[in-house]
Amino acid sequence: MYKAKAYAVSSATSPFGPATIERREPTDHDVQIEILFCGICHSDLHQARDEWHDMMPTMYPCVPGHEIVGRVTRVGSAVTKFKPGDLAAVGCMVDSDRTCPECKAGLEQFCNNFVLTYNFPDKHTGKVTYGGYSDSIVVTEHFVLKVPSNLDLAGAAPLLCAGITTYSPLRHWGVTKGKKVGVVGLGGLGHMGVKFAHALGAHTVVFTTSPGKKEDALRLGADEVVISKDANEMNKHAGSFDFILDAVAAPHDINAYINLLARDGNITLVGAPPEPLPVGVFGLIFRRRSFSGSLIGSIAETQEMLDFCGKHNITSDVEVIPIQKVNEAYERLLKSDVKYRFSIDMASLKSA
Amino acid sequence: MYKAKAYAVSSATSPFGPATIERREPTDHDVQIEILFCGICHSDLHQARDEWHDMMPTMYPCVPGHEIVGRVTRVGSAVTKFKPGDLAAVGCMVDSDRTCPECKAGLEQFCNNFVLTYNFPDKHTGKVTYGGYSDSIVVTEHFVLKVPSNLDLAGAAPLLCAGITTYSPLRHWGVTKGKKVGVVGLGGLGHMGVKFAHALGAHTVVFTTSPGKKEDALRLGADEVVISKDANEMNKHAGSFDFILDAVAAPHDINAYINLLARDGNITLVGAPPEPLPVGVFGLIFRRRSFSGSLIGSIAETQEMLDFCGKHNITSDVEVIPIQKVNEAYERLLKSDVKYRFSIDMASLKSA
Repeated sequence: MYKAKAYAVSSATSPFGPATIERREPTDHDVQIEILFCGICHSDLHQARDEWHDMMPTMYPCVPGHEIVGRVTRVGSAVTKFKPGDLAAVGCMVDSDRTCPECKAGLEQFCNNFVLTYNFPDKHTGKVTYGGYSDSIVVTEHFVLKVPSNLDLAGAAPLLCAGITTYSPLRHWGVTKGKKVGVVGLGGLGHMGVKFAHALGAHTVVFTTSPGKKEDALRLGADEVVISKDANEMNKHAGSFDFILDAVAAPHDINAYINLLARDGNITLVGAPPEPLPVGVFGLIFRRRSFSGSLIGSIAETQEMLDFCGKHNITSDVEVIPIQKVNEAYERLLKSDVKYRFSIDMASLKSA
Repeated sequence: MYKAKAYAVSSATSPFGPATIERREPTDHDVQIEILFCGICHSDLHQARDEWHDMMPTMYPCVPGHEIVGRVTRVGSAVTKFKPGDLAAVGCMVDSDRTCPECKAGLEQFCNNFVLTYNFPDKHTGKVTYGGYSDSIVVTEHFVLKVPSNLDLAGAAPLLCAGITTYSPLRHWGVTKGKKVGVVGLGGLGHMGVKFAHALGAHTVVFTTSPGKKEDALRLGADEVVISKDANEMNKHAGSFDFILDAVAAPHDINAYINLLARDGNITLVGAPPEPLPVGVFGLIFRRRSFSGSLIGSIAETQEMLDFCGKHNITSDVEVIPIQKVNEAYERLLKSDVKYRFSIDMASLKSA
C-alpha cells in the first residue's frame, strides 16, 4: 500500500477537503496512473451527498470521480498494453468478474459483479474504491483505456462517462448517415450526444426549453433546434425521428417525444429521473415504437468511442478548475451553470 | 349496391338487433365473401359503446366485427388469388393507400390512410365501413387472406385479430427455440400468445393473478405458470426473460415485469390500458431493456401467421354462439367470462 493525495467528503453534508488515502501497490496485471484531469459527473454529487442512499449508500470518506485521464507511471510484470509514460484513462468501472456471460460477451457494464470506480467494496484493500479526485490510481489493465494523443486531455476526461453514456446508445440503435436523431437536454450528456450524432452523420435535432441555448446547439453540431415548450414546433416533427437520446434527469413528459418517433423508432433515456415516468401506451402501439434505457458502455466500446473521438477530434466542452474549487463547482452544477462539464486540473492537488 | 343482413347497434346504449345494410357490388379487384364465423374482440365492445369517443367516435348504426372467416361467393374480373368456393378471411383492415412508404414496405398497419373494417369512412359508399356481424362482406383482394383448409373455422376467426396481434410482436422481437418468453394475462390475446410462443419453440411462462388458470395455461402450452401476486415466485425469474408479451388492458405494474427481463430484453404491450403506465427508469437502464407497443400486423404477416397456424394446427379456443346472443356475450366479456373468445356462427343470422 502507498499513500495518495485526494479530495474527499467525510459525510453527506460535509464540504470536500484534502485527504490522504491508501492505494494498493500495482500487482502483476495492474497499471498505476498519475491522474492529470478528472471530470465532475452529476453522479459524483449524488454519491457524495448520499442521495442514492436506498440503492447505493455512501461509505465515507468518499472520493468520487470516474472521468479520469492521466499518464502511466508504473505497470505490473504481466501488463502488455501499457508502459510508463503512456496516456491512459479510467471510466466508471475498475473491475468485473470476467467469467459471467455478460463479461464473456464483452459487456462488463451488465456484469452483476462489476466494481465501480468509487464507493464500491474493494477486494484488494478490504475497504472501498476511491475515484479520480486524487493524484493517482491503480487499475487492472483490462479496465484501462488508451487515449488518442491528439485529444485535449482536460476535454477528454468527460468522455469516460458523459461520452460513452451517449455514444453507446447511438451505436446500439444504429445511428448512421441518413437517420434523423433528436437529443433532449443540452447539458453534460446532451452536448456529447449532439457531437456524436453529428459526427455519425445523422440529421441532428436538439430539443431544449431554453431559446438561449440555440446558438450553442448549432455550434456543437445540431442541424435544427426545437424549443420543446412550443407545441407547434414540436408537431412539425411528429412521427419523423429514427432515434431520440433523452438526457434529461428531471421529471418530464416523455410522451411528447415518443410521439415524434417514426415507425420502429426508439427513445433511450440516459438521464435517470428518480420518479417513474408516465408512458401513454397508444403512443408506443401505433408505430411500434420503443422506450429504453442505457448504461454507460463496455470497455471495448469505450475504447471504440475514444478512437472515434481521436479520429473526429471530439472532446467535451469543459471549464477547467483547480480541485480547491470543487465545492463551488457542485453548487454551480445544481444550477446547470457550466458549459458543459467541469474538468479538474489535478496539478492543483500538489499544492493542496 | 346490394342489401346485406347484419346485427347493429344504433347508439352507445342500445342493444344489438337485426339490421339491413348496403354493401357495394364487387368491383374488378373485389372479393365478395359469405361470412361463416366472426370473432368478438373487446374492441368491438369499446367501439359499439363509443368508449373511444375522443380518438375514434362511433358512427351509428355500427356493425362491428374484424375477425372474419367465410367462403368466396363472387370475385371481380381482375381478381387472381381467389375464386368462388375458396375459404377466405378478413381482419382489422380492408384498405390502405398502397402508395406511402409504410405500404411499400408491406406494413399497411402503419399507413396513415388505412381503412378499418368497421366504423371508418368508406370511399366506395360514401358512408361508413360495416364489419363482420353480417352475412357477407366485399373487400379488395389485397386485404383478403387465405385460410388453411385444415383449420376449424370457428376457431380460425379470432386469428384475424387476437392471433396476428400476438404473433407479430413475437416474430418482430425474434422469439425462437431457446428463448425464454413470458405472457402476461390469459385472455383472448394472451391465450393465443401462449400457443404461438410454444409453437415457436420458446420456453413459455404464463403470468396470471388467478391460480385457477394454472391448469389451463399448461394445457395451452405453457412450460411454467407464475402467480404474479406472489413476489417470491416473481423474484425467482428476475433478469431472465428475453421477451414478455403483455396482454393486459387494465392498469397494472409494468415495472414488476420489466425487472424480469434479461439484458436487452423487451416487453411489448398489446393490451391498451387507457391511462399512462408509470415506468421506472432504472429498470430500463440497468440491463438496456426496452418497452414497446405493437399494432396487429401487416397483410403479408397475417398470411404468414395463418399458414403457421395451418402447419401447427393452431386455432383460438372459442365458445361458439348464435348472433342472437351477442348482447349477452358482451356482458360476459366484461366479466372475462369466456374461454377464450366468442365466435359467432353466422348461420344463425339467416333466421334473424
